[in-house]
Amino acid sequence: MRVLIALGGNAILQRGQKGTASEQRDNVQKTVDQIVRMIRAGHEVVVTHGNGPQVGAILIQNELGSSSVPAMPMDICGAESQGLIGYMFCQSIHNTLCAEGVEGHEPACLVTRVEVDPADPAFANPTKPVGPFYSEEAARKRMAATGETWIDDAGRGWRRVVPSPDPKSIVEADVINALLEKGFTVVASGGGGIPVIRKGNGTWEGVEAVIDKDLAGERLAAAVNADLLVILTDVPKVAINYNTPDQKWLDTLTLSEMEELEKKGHFKAGSMGPKVNSALRFVRNGGQRAIIASLEEALEAIDGKKGTQIVKN
Amino acid sequence: MRVLIALGGNAILQRGQKGTASEQRDNVQKTVDQIVRMIRAGHEVVVTHGNGPQVGAILIQNELGSSSVPAMPMDICGAESQGLIGYMFCQSIHNTLCAEGVEGHEPACLVTRVEVDPADPAFANPTKPVGPFYSEEAARKRMAATGETWIDDAGRGWRRVVPSPDPKSIVEADVINALLEKGFTVVASGGGGIPVIRKGNGTWEGVEAVIDKDLAGERLAAAVNADLLVILTDVPKVAINYNTPDQKWLDTLTLSEMEELEKKGHFKAGSMGPKVNSALRFVRNGGQRAIIASLEEALEAIDGKKGTQIVKN
Repeated sequence: MRVLIALGGNAILQRGQKGTASEQRDNVQKTVDQIVRMIRAGHEVVVTHGNGPQVGAILIQNELGSSSVPAMPMDICGAESQGLIGYMFCQSIHNTLCAEGVEGHEPACLVTRVEVDPADPAFANPTKPVGPFYSEEAARKRMAATGETWIDDAGRGWRRVVPSPDPKSIVEADVINALLEKGFTVVASGGGGIPVIRKGNGTWEGVEAVIDKDLAGERLAAAVNADLLVILTDVPKVAINYNTPDQKWLDTLTLSEMEELEKKGHFKAGSMGPKVNSALRFVRNGGQRAIIASLEEALEAIDGKKGTQIVKN
Repeated sequence: MRVLIALGGNAILQRGQKGTASEQRDNVQKTVDQIVRMIRAGHEVVVTHGNGPQVGAILIQNELGSSSVPAMPMDICGAESQGLIGYMFCQSIHNTLCAEGVEGHEPACLVTRVEVDPADPAFANPTKPVGPFYSEEAARKRMAATGETWIDDAGRGWRRVVPSPDPKSIVEADVINALLEKGFTVVASGGGGIPVIRKGNGTWEGVEAVIDKDLAGERLAAAVNADLLVILTDVPKVAINYNTPDQKWLDTLTLSEMEELEKKGHFKAGSMGPKVNSALRFVRNGGQRAIIASLEEALEAIDGKKGTQIVKN
């Protein structure tokens, strides 16, 4: 089966870690161990991943370095994070295939842009906090100078918020399909992709925004005609009444059953919301099955034995 | 003809510029105008580029940001610069093709590793200055703490030097060829590629080094079976007795004639040396013709009318 794996931030950097290169390499290795298990089981894997901690670090570096070198806009910082993370994945995928004596399936990481709609309401209402924390005074000064939006982030200080528009399409879809046809393990659309808008004449323009990597992962899964969308996270399944005495893990549900639960507001915007939304979209758009599972149980989830499975009606 | 274009730093950032995103985008656009001229003339173009100013900026940002986020090693910084520059090229190539109504030839930028030999003498003798300038005191402290090599850089301050080993092969060669077969305009091996060494068991490991982008460009040209290697720079031709009253621009020379001049020491290590070396290698390894020319005259040089042409004996 052709499987789109969407990896969360914890696949690259775990909470509480500093973010050194060796920490990130170690986490990537653990993730890749699971990916290679899938490849060995006969699946064709396409990988996408988040970039929250990495692009956050790059934004802080840009900020602190700005006395010496000009800071880059967010789209370019996102592109940098694709290079950073994609390189680590390619290295680790090759090395693991090699160590386990698996032929073929060599990795390829593509700089990937994702189309967003300039009329997306998110642009009028930026909500996604990114980059360094500022004092209120510094944030207000910055807002006045740049037109950026900064908000008081849960009492931790002021932080820039950027729009998080809905992904429309994967610009490099044809490139990715060409590589899959040749048997490469493709790493693409990192961090949800570099957000671009289409101008009237068909040209692309980068925008300062971030795209949810699970929603972009669904677009990628559709673009490559994946059989399965597998969203990996740090819990074994989706739950309703999460973190309450009535919590209940979800096993296999039909599209309609899951839509029903979504409508009841079980899946919060800041956590399971976009994952469930992506999974629903995938099945709604004709996908066979979508899975939300933990990294460690990914292969078992693909086999239908673990995780939350969303299937056609 | 299949043409490998190796772009110098001036194709992305010009001397005296600050390095803002818009400066870089403008320069990339001028470069891409020339690339699209080649495509319109019927050539199949593979693009590689330097990353000196960009990876320099990233290293400075890593340094100045290191109080808040861990600095990344050089191989990862190089990967980041491939994302940064590759994104700008892809955007600009698509937009120019689109504006000029050219079908196909859509761009694809690949994160690219380049193999170097761990026994390369460059590792025992780091010579390539990178990153920020330090005071002698700070540099000596840093050397003691990290084992890095720092030198007094022409009186401008102390600066880290890293090895510049000879590139052996393009790790992603098969990926690049798969994309060329499908008609994509590939951007690859940016900044000379991310340097990796092959371990005994066939796995790759990143190393802290920089690879000359023209020498890596020759390896890439060979890997994709390019008809022409075109090294673009800011002078119209190679000269002997450069900047002396006896200066003479070179037009068309055979491999042997150019080798003769090289042996006489006409081409300095810090300027034309690696370009001439790459051009000679390309023809020596069976390439049809190598060109060193200015960006503005690139298409005319491909047509044999401008630039320095190195042909088979």
